[in-house]
Amino acid sequence: MTDSRFQSDEWKIIETRFEPERGRDSESIFALGNGMMGQRANFEERYSGDTLQGTYVAGIYYPDKTVVGWWKNGYPEYFAKVPNAPSWTGIDVKIDGELLDLAKCKVKVFRRVLDMKEGLLTRSFTAVMSSGRVAEVTARRFLSMSEPERAAISYAVTIRGGSGTVEVAPWLNADVYNEDANYDEKFWEKESAEYDGLRAAVVAQTRKTAFVVATAMENAFTVNGKSVKSNIALSAGDKTAHCSLTYQYSDGDTVEVKKYVAVLSSTNHPVEGMARKAMASAGEAAKKGFDAMLDSHVRAWAAKWEMGDIVIRGDIAAQQGIRFNIFQLNQTYTGEDPRLNIGPKGFTGEKYGGSTYWDTEAFVLPFYLSTADTHVARNLLLYRYKHLEKAIENAAKLGFKNGAALYPMVTMNGEECHNEWEITFEEIHRNGAIAYAIYNYIRHTGDQGYLAEYGLEVLIAISRFWAQRCNFSEEKNQYVILGVTGPNEYENNVSNNWYTNILARWTLKYTVDSLAWLRKTSTVKFNSVISRTRLDTECELSLWNEIINNIYLPVHHDLGIFLQQDGYMDKLQQTVKDLDPAERPLNQHWSWDRILRSVFIKQADVLQGIYFFEDDYEEETIRRNFDFYESRCVHESSLSPSIHSVLAARLHDIERAYTLYLRTARLDLDDYNREVKDGLHITSMAGTWLSIVEGFGGMRIRNDRVYLDPVIPAAWSSYSFIIRFRNNPLRVEVNGKAVTVVNLSGESIPLAFCDEQLTLGPGEEKKIAK
Amino acid sequence: MTDSRFQSDEWKIIETRFEPERGRDSESIFALGNGMMGQRANFEERYSGDTLQGTYVAGIYYPDKTVVGWWKNGYPEYFAKVPNAPSWTGIDVKIDGELLDLAKCKVKVFRRVLDMKEGLLTRSFTAVMSSGRVAEVTARRFLSMSEPERAAISYAVTIRGGSGTVEVAPWLNADVYNEDANYDEKFWEKESAEYDGLRAAVVAQTRKTAFVVATAMENAFTVNGKSVKSNIALSAGDKTAHCSLTYQYSDGDTVEVKKYVAVLSSTNHPVEGMARKAMASAGEAAKKGFDAMLDSHVRAWAAKWEMGDIVIRGDIAAQQGIRFNIFQLNQTYTGEDPRLNIGPKGFTGEKYGGSTYWDTEAFVLPFYLSTADTHVARNLLLYRYKHLEKAIENAAKLGFKNGAALYPMVTMNGEECHNEWEITFEEIHRNGAIAYAIYNYIRHTGDQGYLAEYGLEVLIAISRFWAQRCNFSEEKNQYVILGVTGPNEYENNVSNNWYTNILARWTLKYTVDSLAWLRKTSTVKFNSVISRTRLDTECELSLWNEIINNIYLPVHHDLGIFLQQDGYMDKLQQTVKDLDPAERPLNQHWSWDRILRSVFIKQADVLQGIYFFEDDYEEETIRRNFDFYESRCVHESSLSPSIHSVLAARLHDIERAYTLYLRTARLDLDDYNREVKDGLHITSMAGTWLSIVEGFGGMRIRNDRVYLDPVIPAAWSSYSFIIRFRNNPLRVEVNGKAVTVVNLSGESIPLAFCDEQLTLGPGEEKKIAK
Repeated sequence: MTDSRFQSDEWKIIETRFEPERGRDSESIFALGNGMMGQRANFEERYSGDTLQGTYVAGIYYPDKTVVGWWKNGYPEYFAKVPNAPSWTGIDVKIDGELLDLAKCKVKVFRRVLDMKEGLLTRSFTAVMSSGRVAEVTARRFLSMSEPERAAISYAVTIRGGSGTVEVAPWLNADVYNEDANYDEKFWEKESAEYDGLRAAVVAQTRKTAFVVATAMENAFTVNGKSVKSNIALSAGDKTAHCSLTYQYSDGDTVEVKKYVAVLSSTNHPVEGMARKAMASAGEAAKKGFDAMLDSHVRAWAAKWEMGDIVIRGDIAAQQGIRFNIFQLNQTYTGEDPRLNIGPKGFTGEKYGGSTYWDTEAFVLPFYLSTADTHVARNLLLYRYKHLEKAIENAAKLGFKNGAALYPMVTMNGEECHNEWEITFEEIHRNGAIAYAIYNYIRHTGDQGYLAEYGLEVLIAISRFWAQRCNFSEEKNQYVILGVTGPNEYENNVSNNWYTNILARWTLKYTVDSLAWLRKTSTVKFNSVISRTRLDTECELSLWNEIINNIYLPVHHDLGIFLQQDGYMDKLQQTVKDLDPAERPLNQHWSWDRILRSVFIKQADVLQGIYFFEDDYEEETIRRNFDFYESRCVHESSLSPSIHSVLAARLHDIERAYTLYLRTARLDLDDYNREVKDGLHITSMAGTWLSIVEGFGGMRIRNDRVYLDPVIPAAWSSYSFIIRFRNNPLRVEVNGKAVTVVNLSGESIPLAFCDEQLTLGPGEEKKIAK
Repeated sequence: MTDSRFQSDEWKIIETRFEPERGRDSESIFALGNGMMGQRANFEERYSGDTLQGTYVAGIYYPDKTVVGWWKNGYPEYFAKVPNAPSWTGIDVKIDGELLDLAKCKVKVFRRVLDMKEGLLTRSFTAVMSSGRVAEVTARRFLSMSEPERAAISYAVTIRGGSGTVEVAPWLNADVYNEDANYDEKFWEKESAEYDGLRAAVVAQTRKTAFVVATAMENAFTVNGKSVKSNIALSAGDKTAHCSLTYQYSDGDTVEVKKYVAVLSSTNHPVEGMARKAMASAGEAAKKGFDAMLDSHVRAWAAKWEMGDIVIRGDIAAQQGIRFNIFQLNQTYTGEDPRLNIGPKGFTGEKYGGSTYWDTEAFVLPFYLSTADTHVARNLLLYRYKHLEKAIENAAKLGFKNGAALYPMVTMNGEECHNEWEITFEEIHRNGAIAYAIYNYIRHTGDQGYLAEYGLEVLIAISRFWAQRCNFSEEKNQYVILGVTGPNEYENNVSNNWYTNILARWTLKYTVDSLAWLRKTSTVKFNSVISRTRLDTECELSLWNEIINNIYLPVHHDLGIFLQQDGYMDKLQQTVKDLDPAERPLNQHWSWDRILRSVFIKQADVLQGIYFFEDDYEEETIRRNFDFYESRCVHESSLSPSIHSVLAARLHDIERAYTLYLRTARLDLDDYNREVKDGLHITSMAGTWLSIVEGFGGMRIRNDRVYLDPVIPAAWSSYSFIIRFRNNPLRVEVNGKAVTVVNLSGESIPLAFCDEQLTLGPGEEKKIAK
């Protein structure tokens, strides 16, 4: 922790040196987003050094052609990529004809501060031009959380060392490229630019998908705090728009531009007239002014922090780490639009195509369930409900029938858009996580009605998939599931992956039970579900029950563990301790076949199943499996350590839990995997939240009651978190001696504390000695 | 057989109708080649209809960037593609300003004849132009087998219906594209064109690989048989060269051009001055003249037929089929250049990148061993010997050490150039086929010296690979080989594929035995091998012997069969009879995961092993395995039916052998798989040869003796084939009553006929009643 590049601070990320070789890293760390759009921390002024330019607009993707060695039937036609969108951050500064460029100037002071409480990025530096003039710059930027189509930049430059001419020129550029393009092909077309009075806009359309983005600006200039209206020129090229103030400066003059930006997308606006609309929006922002915009932005952030802050005392690095994670999750997804979801890298890079993975259901959902209004988690579920038709089509492409659904492994709009067969066709456990999310949502929110309205349709379609996907093995005299990839993607095309089999059985059982419950509760609703899904309650249910009762679950009796998959014990039995550190991470040093035939596990797999269904297993069973698999796990997925940490805490091994927690808490801030340059690990940040709330806090929802069983790492003096149960907030504070629980809501909350049940009245606080 | 598009003929392939919708098919069927270059049967005159233009030059490839969803360590940087090379076949014909184009004229007569005896393609047609003029064309073409850098075309057009102006314009074009390009990118650059006197040339260089090809022409015109020298214009554009005769024709005039072509490549010539050299070569060809060139070409073909013809009486379709296969094999590979090899589609299409697969060693080598001089098969072996260093590098990339070699699955120059992990990294059985080829070569040729000089280096490197690739399973208490793909590519990443394990054991044993033999034979040579390979005769050999004695070979005791792989019996047990014919071929109807978890087998796998090591198994064992696996085999590789046919004949099931033989004999001629448009299945043609010589003929080489055990299909009255044993030709003729064997050589040949041993003196003939 001590080798962090950033100063310790409870609320801020602070960079104090200009390190061009870490430029891309910082562009990721200081990225901003507001659920609707995102922006890497690219410099406003021109920068000829190494940079990954990144401007992203939610829901916009480019369908890159699937290119494979040999085509396999069922492959999706495309692989979605998140296109770097028209750029709006640029402000050129020319002092006596010389472009300000930190790659070419002498940089004397450099400081960048991300204030997570306010969602504000401030950068200040002093640069010496080759002419000897000194430019002192302060740039502030935010993407409005209260007006999510708007952003604002304040950029002030003070020039010292003489007088002359300065030109400050904010610009927009629709001529943008992705780094992640196979043949340097462009993802945008039909670019145009225009201006009108003080406003300008660029418009571009994605190739093939025809998403249109209009980006507009209005700029307000001041010199030494006084508004300037003359010597401002606007112009528009084919694909770029420019505004430029030319000013004869004297020594010490400060020129400032406030750049008000609006970004509109065709996902929310008709294409016709979008440039005008964007310019009008930028104009309204300018009229409101920077400070007023910032004020409402900060208030929106305050509301988020009130819902979901975690406070850690006695460990400032941990405090900074967890707030960074919560901040990034809130920057990525606000839950207002059920068409959106949470890409593994959010708005911080091109990798993973900004698409939706099973990360959402398996790792991220609990965060939003606990820290946001119920409708946010519900929108995450509706995202999948709305894609049910496409999931059924997807399964049909793979030969499944009768309304069986296979949700895509990676998706932008419900269609599969990843193209490796071992992932796309075989990593079918994702279906189980989507079913589990329904159960998880209901146990948190109590919204049983969701089952009849939406949930059962999804559950039935997934159960149909499982029933068709397994086959009866005469050799084993049981049902088996052949040819899968589990969460451990370091084994492909294996048979009887325990996690997949247990999830399949669970889904079938949950569906059968939910149907029975609905039949009992409401005949009308039950019949409606049956008629919508055309479920054959005789044949289909009887097959499901047969599979539930007779599915093969591989175990190793001598070792007393569940088996990763059928062939696991034939492998050379090693543990992580046997590995040469120089060969870590394995995925950067070992060829794929070597990884596949090794025992080493990428991320929780059997343990992921135990995490989901913890109550089904005795502590000793959990311990045996944990000890066996944790020693074989290389944690080469960022999603891995948190689940292990939760289980270690469950096993009362606080030290181990804490060690595992540390691997995830500051993963990006301290760049453990040397890949933060590509973007942040947004979805795994929810795992860090889990390791505190479910791990150390021991929070569980069981039988309509919040269970708590907190422990505290030795390094901390106290920690507190807020969770919502049935949309009622509850604050839990833990220190070495006691746990304090406060019901922040107006309703009673049923609790269980270390298995002792109690009910906390509205506003009531209870302190329980440990 | 009766629905063939082609007339039955013993020596000719005859097409009698113009079928534009089958145009690509015919372009493949009538393709010409001479080992150095190849040419699809594209029309000489312009053709605006559907066509796959294909001009190929041996050894030339373009390294297309590997594009995958997620990069895996060890992937090759590129995927080799065979570039469509500068085109030399074009001859534009303009009658009264109207371009002759069969897609636009009325075609009244159309006939195309491939004379396989002479290697000559003749096309004649009558076309009615929109002007009413009738053009009668006869075009003849060959790629010289005696002068392999040269080709010649004779193109004669007779015009009826009036008088006017005709322009006949042969051209060369370096501005060519591949269909198989991901983003329509070009594979050639630096194209140029020039002319000098009557000669012209185009030159182009492949991108990235910088192979240069220079293509030149000289043209000789006649009108009504009389040479014409005037009104001939030459010109050169940027990338094209043109020659043009303009002539005022009268009704019935015949204008003929003889186009002499030379194609030179930088693999054989210095780049400097290549265009000039190509023009000089075309000039020499012109000087020699069409008839003289054709004469020596036909003599070269006669020699090939003398070495390897198969004569079938009583079944003209079978006769045509087998000669087509022999003809194509000889067009593809002549064995004079050890840098060349046999691509699965030869020079007939772009698919499979013209590269080398295990097909060469497993299927094609026996054909050349029996029908060509020893140096031809030896060159095929040397091809791999020269690539040993790269095979060791390739294995090192995958983590293998100490000189272990993994030969590439697909290659142009020794480097791996296929990029699917389940093939590239896991289809390791190819290593075994390469070892087996050494054994096969030596038992045919008696060239034991090859072992000391080259063979053992390869065998040791491959044995090292096997020893490192297996691991000891504590669970099984035996050595296992995990994570492989067998010849049955419809199962991926399986464990203990019987074929792979048996080949690994065999290689280790053959290497150990060969070392022991060499130690006994020549200490000097033995020590030289040890020093070249740095073999640790203590440790390495002792490990090899341990593996030989204790490798796991999966069997199913109840069924009495060898097991395809560990998990095979967990699959839903079905046979091919259970399949819906509408779902065949599976690879065009089933998604990959469904194929992978089905029992259905693409091609001989366990049976391929039994084929290689037939003498190790009792007939009943062979029969049980054959019955089990043949009923599960969908034969979706063109390499499949022939091996099954040989085994069926071995089991005296002639009817089944014949049925299987029919699936391969006219595969392309009758286009069973509806894919001949992409090119011919060159390597599987050797399988057809195998099913006659090893299948019906029962030919085996055992203990320095030729074994024969012939049967004859009921449909044939007789058949004969020629094979070489120790480079001595032997003719075998079989009819319903007797087998006649003729020693065509000057040395004695030891024979075994239905287990009776005899020796046939020089020139001796022996007739044995059946």
